[in-house]
Amino acid sequence: MSVTDVGGFVASGIGCGIKLSGEHDMAIVATADFAPVNAAGVFTSNKMTAAPVLVCREHLAVTQGTAAAVVLNSGNANAATGKQGMADARRMCELTAAGLGVVPQHVLVCSTGLIGYGLPMDKIAPGISAAIASLSASGGPQAAQAIMTTDTVPKQVTIASNGFTVGGIAKGAAMLEPNMATMLAVLTTDAASSSEELVAALRAGVASTFNTLTVDGAESTNDTVLILANGQAGAVAYADLVEAVIAACESLAMQMADDAEGSTKTVFLRVTGAASDAEAAKAARDTANCQLVKCSWYGQDPYWGRIASEMGAAGVAFDHTKLTIAYGPHVVYDHGEPAHPSELAEYMAGRHLELNVDLGMGNGTARIITTDLTHAYVDENMGTS
Amino acid sequence: MSVTDVGGFVASGIGCGIKLSGEHDMAIVATADFAPVNAAGVFTSNKMTAAPVLVCREHLAVTQGTAAAVVLNSGNANAATGKQGMADARRMCELTAAGLGVVPQHVLVCSTGLIGYGLPMDKIAPGISAAIASLSASGGPQAAQAIMTTDTVPKQVTIASNGFTVGGIAKGAAMLEPNMATMLAVLTTDAASSSEELVAALRAGVASTFNTLTVDGAESTNDTVLILANGQAGAVAYADLVEAVIAACESLAMQMADDAEGSTKTVFLRVTGAASDAEAAKAARDTANCQLVKCSWYGQDPYWGRIASEMGAAGVAFDHTKLTIAYGPHVVYDHGEPAHPSELAEYMAGRHLELNVDLGMGNGTARIITTDLTHAYVDENMGTS
Repeated sequence: MSVTDVGGFVASGIGCGIKLSGEHDMAIVATADFAPVNAAGVFTSNKMTAAPVLVCREHLAVTQGTAAAVVLNSGNANAATGKQGMADARRMCELTAAGLGVVPQHVLVCSTGLIGYGLPMDKIAPGISAAIASLSASGGPQAAQAIMTTDTVPKQVTIASNGFTVGGIAKGAAMLEPNMATMLAVLTTDAASSSEELVAALRAGVASTFNTLTVDGAESTNDTVLILANGQAGAVAYADLVEAVIAACESLAMQMADDAEGSTKTVFLRVTGAASDAEAAKAARDTANCQLVKCSWYGQDPYWGRIASEMGAAGVAFDHTKLTIAYGPHVVYDHGEPAHPSELAEYMAGRHLELNVDLGMGNGTARIITTDLTHAYVDENMGTS
Repeated sequence: MSVTDVGGFVASGIGCGIKLSGEHDMAIVATADFAPVNAAGVFTSNKMTAAPVLVCREHLAVTQGTAAAVVLNSGNANAATGKQGMADARRMCELTAAGLGVVPQHVLVCSTGLIGYGLPMDKIAPGISAAIASLSASGGPQAAQAIMTTDTVPKQVTIASNGFTVGGIAKGAAMLEPNMATMLAVLTTDAASSSEELVAALRAGVASTFNTLTVDGAESTNDTVLILANGQAGAVAYADLVEAVIAACESLAMQMADDAEGSTKTVFLRVTGAASDAEAAKAARDTANCQLVKCSWYGQDPYWGRIASEMGAAGVAFDHTKLTIAYGPHVVYDHGEPAHPSELAEYMAGRHLELNVDLGMGNGTARIITTDLTHAYVDENMGTS
């Protein structure tokens, strides 16, 4: 269940002291022979782009979509760090490249953790050496461990498809709208695929999984999803590749939702009957990010009034007499009239909730996966220390 | 300091059992002789409009901007209540009108509290009778008390201007983006003013005060600001009227911010240097409503990285090398480079924080007043019971 379940890849995870707790904080994922292979990345659209994201984009452009390794650290996002941050991100690639015997442009870099503080390069330089020394064909779980920040469990996946495999590790809560300060994922595959196909498959995977997940509406400076394809399994059907990448991303996204900061509920919100898919997505996202709605989930309270209010405020085509809201099979608001179903308390007590909202205006639909807002979320985000 | 500080107005506030706690929950504000006078209203733009808002709009349209009284209840918002909710809102006006000897169209109605539950008319009918019996020229403070929901203190204001007075009562946390399920305000004045001037003055007042206040980004179904002008003080300069209305709204808005649900900080966020005022407002509002930023204020943590990240994610013209962020006089991020000022802890410990963000892209500016996100906010919004 990890990046090293795919033949021809090695990984490692070690602690080098970036995290004061002493937990693991440095990881490398690489091809087993350190030879560059086809690669692709999808990154945050936040304009306050972190230095490692800028370096990844530059390297993938220069190499026309090839890479031999990814170096990742947790405990510090190297974001909002100015010119020194760019120099440090480049230095991480150079140190890794020197250790592996490749050019720096064939190394990609990811950082996650606090924003606004310079990287402790005196710890990172020996950390990279130690991570290289630890690389092994069974190192995926250690790498997954080393990229955790507020995660409570490592996130890993292996998808076996028609003669090839996709493996992955990830950290964080959401893509494009992550929680702490980064969602990262690294996928590996032994499928033979061009860089162009990899980019397309990765975009498809991200769009239907990570991009439907929102914890708090905040879009990170560092979000990165990478894939490396070493081709050892030979050519595969493109449709199979896309399907396997989506399955891997879906699994990692669900692991993130169930481990989101302080959450006690994962909510699958589906909006149907909107005037368009775009309006459905707007209404779904606004509702998923509404503090009041999120608090009521925490309280296991099916307070449909707040949901109806968010739908009315979302700026989409709306007629309250056509609005229907249901938790799972329990209709709580039916074409403009409140319903008060019995036996709802047991449903609301579950870890996973399905919330279906039908606007009755057209054929637009959207899905969002989100979480509740809890005391523990406030605790985790009150301070940086 | 209330609506009855203005000559020629009476008010009352009593308890009729809508709130199970027994606290006051029914209020009336009226002209002393129950004669209709010029009036105006500004209402929520939420399309999930509550029944009392629809009835207010209808009555002001029918009467061409005149009213004799406002009846208000707390404990139940009469929102998302379907056809019965409309009938109940009309019935509240009819009962009040019968007691005062006016036509129902000269009564305006406001409700605040839980969404999605029918009004207990068996309690409201005798409550309206009792409120009418209690009307007095010193009843403003009782009315302010009776419209409280999660407010911990009543909100009242009196502004003395050039020969006339504006008085007001209010409840709730924010206009257009309120907290629980309604921000309400009723203003009175003895200035003589046409309904058209009253509408314009009220819109100006709301735009520069209540509409710059956001607690959690949720827009209520019931938000209502009303003004009644009995003309006893004679004609006034329109500019003076606007100034006094703005001053009254500003005072009530500040009282709301300082009493927002569970808040420990009031934050004055100013964005300058945006490409346009609209972009400044977008960036300011996104940042003010970011859960991560709000939690860091609660923790008294000047975590500028999150603020920079919100600016980068706001979809506005952005270049991090031109971005400067300061808490009061303390610069924490200076043209793309982090600064680490000393003596910031004492500043962050204050109840009121000034946060200034300069984007360095143009001349657009915006101001937002907001609050932090706390354990107490989660407590208050976990459930409806």
